[in-house]
Amino acid sequence: IDLYLVGVGTVGNELLSILGESNQDQICLKGVATSKKMLLSESCFDPNKIGNKLKESGDKFDLDEFLDNTGEQKGNKVFVDCTASTAVSQKYTAILDRGFSIVTANKIANTLDYGFYQSLRENASKNGVSFFYEANVGAGLPVISTMQNLLSTGDKIISIEGVFSGTLSYLFNTLTAKMNFSELVNNAKSNGFTEPDPRQDLNGLDVARKLLILARETGAELELEDIIVESLLPTGSESIDSVDGFLKHLGQFDGEMRVKVKEAEAQNKRFRFIGKYEDENASVSLQKIGREHPFYELQGSDNIIAFRTRRYPNQPLVIKGAGAGAAVTAAGVLGDIQQCLVSN
Amino acid sequence: IDLYLVGVGTVGNELLSILGESNQDQICLKGVATSKKMLLSESCFDPNKIGNKLKESGDKFDLDEFLDNTGEQKGNKVFVDCTASTAVSQKYTAILDRGFSIVTANKIANTLDYGFYQSLRENASKNGVSFFYEANVGAGLPVISTMQNLLSTGDKIISIEGVFSGTLSYLFNTLTAKMNFSELVNNAKSNGFTEPDPRQDLNGLDVARKLLILARETGAELELEDIIVESLLPTGSESIDSVDGFLKHLGQFDGEMRVKVKEAEAQNKRFRFIGKYEDENASVSLQKIGREHPFYELQGSDNIIAFRTRRYPNQPLVIKGAGAGAAVTAAGVLGDIQQCLVSN
Repeated sequence: IDLYLVGVGTVGNELLSILGESNQDQICLKGVATSKKMLLSESCFDPNKIGNKLKESGDKFDLDEFLDNTGEQKGNKVFVDCTASTAVSQKYTAILDRGFSIVTANKIANTLDYGFYQSLRENASKNGVSFFYEANVGAGLPVISTMQNLLSTGDKIISIEGVFSGTLSYLFNTLTAKMNFSELVNNAKSNGFTEPDPRQDLNGLDVARKLLILARETGAELELEDIIVESLLPTGSESIDSVDGFLKHLGQFDGEMRVKVKEAEAQNKRFRFIGKYEDENASVSLQKIGREHPFYELQGSDNIIAFRTRRYPNQPLVIKGAGAGAAVTAAGVLGDIQQCLVSN
Repeated sequence: IDLYLVGVGTVGNELLSILGESNQDQICLKGVATSKKMLLSESCFDPNKIGNKLKESGDKFDLDEFLDNTGEQKGNKVFVDCTASTAVSQKYTAILDRGFSIVTANKIANTLDYGFYQSLRENASKNGVSFFYEANVGAGLPVISTMQNLLSTGDKIISIEGVFSGTLSYLFNTLTAKMNFSELVNNAKSNGFTEPDPRQDLNGLDVARKLLILARETGAELELEDIIVESLLPTGSESIDSVDGFLKHLGQFDGEMRVKVKEAEAQNKRFRFIGKYEDENASVSLQKIGREHPFYELQGSDNIIAFRTRRYPNQPLVIKGAGAGAAVTAAGVLGDIQQCLVSN
């Protein structure tokens, strides 16, 4: 298959490096682009060298041109999206119509309005191509594929519950009553564990998007607005100009947070930021859980997901592990690309 | 694809019932057999009716005849093995040579000598057909596929650790110092949670077979004899004629077991029967583990597996859930059949 990659940030770069390392002789890299530049070739690029080459000598990026150059092949072209771009996502239907399969780490397309969500699947099916997005939830963890397999073999989902944000997992797995929450956030930011602006983690929207993707997988015609989201941002946080200003503001609530955590510790309970879908209700909120809960022992920045289904009714099917980071996300993307090899 | 099913016990029967329930219009059931009888058809059988039909009117089973009847199609015939038969397993290479893909719940083929193990893969590849066995470990849990995906995307396995037997999971998740081990085994047997002869669970061989399958997946040229297996059977158990006689014999060791469990409880530890592969060493043994161990909170008859890999080095990738039972096993088999639909 011929590969066309858009987005050469941490994930895209890591994907190129895994491709370079492995001898993927069935995968031919024919195009690479960032939001500004692009490189196209009739033969296969060396994934190890293309990153620098692109910086030095790429043409100006133009999506249409990027797609036009791909000749007449059908069913063996894969468009890989490692950007976080809404503009690129909105072109997916057109890209599928041009005979590309799509593999994406970008969550936007699957969380736009339901009509668009459906048209992605219809266009893929109509054109006999694939649309894969394993890295949308839990990075390289087998979350989407497991769910699709449960459903396609006739199982019924009763509930989906998970900690879907590596950042929020880390914060609440680490927080004790002896710490200032704002300091913990600040340190996490310094170590690169949060978005450059931690409000993008703390507002719960990233978790809501992932929950939406999973809920829609069950057939639910849900919109992002239908999800009840408990933001962890104190009132007024969003209007503060600077990140430093926000962290200072957050510091005002350290006492309040400490009281809550102290209370939980006294009850042998822990806080976890949990997304849950059950009985057509989707919510994202901070939960105080006890030792009996499968998420109690969660550690580090791990993601965890528990599916209760008709076949796994009491003890859920649980998947746990690192759900963020360049290497595991790129592995999720590469797994999907390999799936295109067998599917098309 | 045309489906040829051998074995209509609990799993085979459940598979027929899932096939009957779902509208799998791409799957045409053309043959069904037990060790004694078989039924073949030019058109598609109704999976809901074939079980009874076979009992009433099947011809005498003959594997060659069963396979001969399948005409000239290539690449779209799937042979499904839901038996526990060694004789059937030994025919796999020949079956692959006849252009069938194989989907199996039967662990035997993957645990015979390494030369045979390799020839299975070579014959599948040579003939352009598939060989799938997800249900070999953890029933419907995505264990084999996850491991294959890790490896094919360039990850390296550091260690594999798991509780792979639903029966032994149940026994040690339930056992307390207040119980007699032999009584617990007896009750489990009465409830159908063990093999008809519980010695087949307690000797650790089933766990060793599963560990072997996983270890070989990493490329290890391991034989079943290379695995160090701690049998839970007291000396002399194997030579006892009757199951009742064995359970009485086992009762002599209840006191000893109670002392061990009491000691573990005093240390806040628990017993788990764990298979482990690391640094080319494979072992199966009863382990006393503490609260920090990911298997401490295991409940019911759940299986659990933890992969430490280059990409999941400290916090392992963990999969947990029911790993035995007709419904989840048949789901694992059906998932593989559907994989044949996209692969061939």
